[in-house]
Amino acid sequence: MKLRRSSRLVDMTGFLLQHPHQIIPLSYFSERYESAKSSISEDLTIIKENFESQGVGKLQTLAGAAGGVSYLPCMSCSEARILLGDLKEQMTNPDRLLPGGYLYMTDILGRPDVVNAIGRLIASVYAEDKVDTIMTMETKGIPLAYAVASQCNVPVIVVRRSSKVTEGSTVSINYISGSSKRIQTMVLPRRSLKERAHVLIVDDFMKAGGTMKGMMNLTKEFGATVAGMAVFVEKKDEQPKLVDHYISLLKLSIIEQEDRLFMEDGNVMEVVRNMKPPKEQA
Amino acid sequence: MKLRRSSRLVDMTGFLLQHPHQIIPLSYFSERYESAKSSISEDLTIIKENFESQGVGKLQTLAGAAGGVSYLPCMSCSEARILLGDLKEQMTNPDRLLPGGYLYMTDILGRPDVVNAIGRLIASVYAEDKVDTIMTMETKGIPLAYAVASQCNVPVIVVRRSSKVTEGSTVSINYISGSSKRIQTMVLPRRSLKERAHVLIVDDFMKAGGTMKGMMNLTKEFGATVAGMAVFVEKKDEQPKLVDHYISLLKLSIIEQEDRLFMEDGNVMEVVRNMKPPKEQA
Repeated sequence: MKLRRSSRLVDMTGFLLQHPHQIIPLSYFSERYESAKSSISEDLTIIKENFESQGVGKLQTLAGAAGGVSYLPCMSCSEARILLGDLKEQMTNPDRLLPGGYLYMTDILGRPDVVNAIGRLIASVYAEDKVDTIMTMETKGIPLAYAVASQCNVPVIVVRRSSKVTEGSTVSINYISGSSKRIQTMVLPRRSLKERAHVLIVDDFMKAGGTMKGMMNLTKEFGATVAGMAVFVEKKDEQPKLVDHYISLLKLSIIEQEDRLFMEDGNVMEVVRNMKPPKEQA
Repeated sequence: MKLRRSSRLVDMTGFLLQHPHQIIPLSYFSERYESAKSSISEDLTIIKENFESQGVGKLQTLAGAAGGVSYLPCMSCSEARILLGDLKEQMTNPDRLLPGGYLYMTDILGRPDVVNAIGRLIASVYAEDKVDTIMTMETKGIPLAYAVASQCNVPVIVVRRSSKVTEGSTVSINYISGSSKRIQTMVLPRRSLKERAHVLIVDDFMKAGGTMKGMMNLTKEFGATVAGMAVFVEKKDEQPKLVDHYISLLKLSIIEQEDRLFMEDGNVMEVVRNMKPPKEQA
């Protein structure tokens, strides 16, 4: 249909936000709106300026035959700081302490707006990296993994603790839990992960990192590569960590004798602060 | 900041899409853009026309002191038909048959674009109803539940098969699986569900409906109300069903002797066809 600029802008904005990390040829828009490519280019300039000034993300234009425009979701440093500030405030409540040094986060991770914001922050960090799939361990990491995957436009694979009839044949490995030192099993459907895929591992909580390390080993078992590891909350005092090169959003310290807990920024803020501003990269 | 109409349209579209089912006062936008309310109203008219003609959703304007604008995501009948057509085609593959009359859907439900589209369709059906929370059973229903919840702007609660240290005190009930007739347990954290909440139950697969019925009973145990039930795939030939008043997107029939399966539309298409077009309701 033929649309005026104002309607084109509304429609293109919605379309780009819902199709992150996909190259959309300019001809797609010019056919959709029966408009000249030059008009579409002007529209995209307006959208790009708005996205970048509002910290929504980057709009990359790729020239050539395979060219087009691609929306990369990004969270600005200031928005990340506000998000982490809010989360720290909500989570620094001694009622949240559970036996075994765990933290009750079910309510917070039950809110899709919070989970989607966390997903957008993690996706921002890896926006320029090759990521083919998001991996997580059942159950609590699943919403975060999908939130990241939605922004990266890649599928999710869920590692399970035992094989299920609904998943066909599986590959399983044993690993040692970092904090309890017990031998545990993790299982992945055979057809779920391709060789040489780049896997971003995402989880909600990390103590010593035994589960993360297990997922690294499982990735290698399939001949795939770890593109990165991201965790929502890590326990600060759990040492030594079994993994490195991960990002964490928050760090938790517990003073058990006093039933008190502290939350501080994880290393993600260092990464976000060092990310190149969008204008330089476009 | 002061913005021109074109930039306002881009920004407002993004903001509304990311804040479904929330009443945004016009003063929020007029302050954000340092623009007169009359200009904002004109902007909203453009966005409303676009959303409704493109089948993205409805923009409801509420007059009065508590007034403002609210975006209700909706999927058009034609988009729903295309979505279900695509899903049927992908799923009608005999390789997907698993022992026990189950279906391998892990790859399809691993794709966030597919899951988000299914979530938008389910949310459309309940767009005009009071829904306070989405409930699902671990593990496979979780992504669908979050996809629906994102569109409804409500939290998710996940029912588990056994209690976990990370969830504090719990309430558990026993229920009888409809197809295997075995007694099973389901558990929910005590602090997760409020009395008198309106609960929309979402799951990925239903045979006789024993799990759905268990979740209904668990909802009542908390003094809450079932607002609706939605399932992605139901088995057609599993009779009698233990629940009614549910919607299903697809119906699966299996001819086991021949290793063949058939997929047809569930009852959701009847509901979508009967939904009032947005223009009449606004």
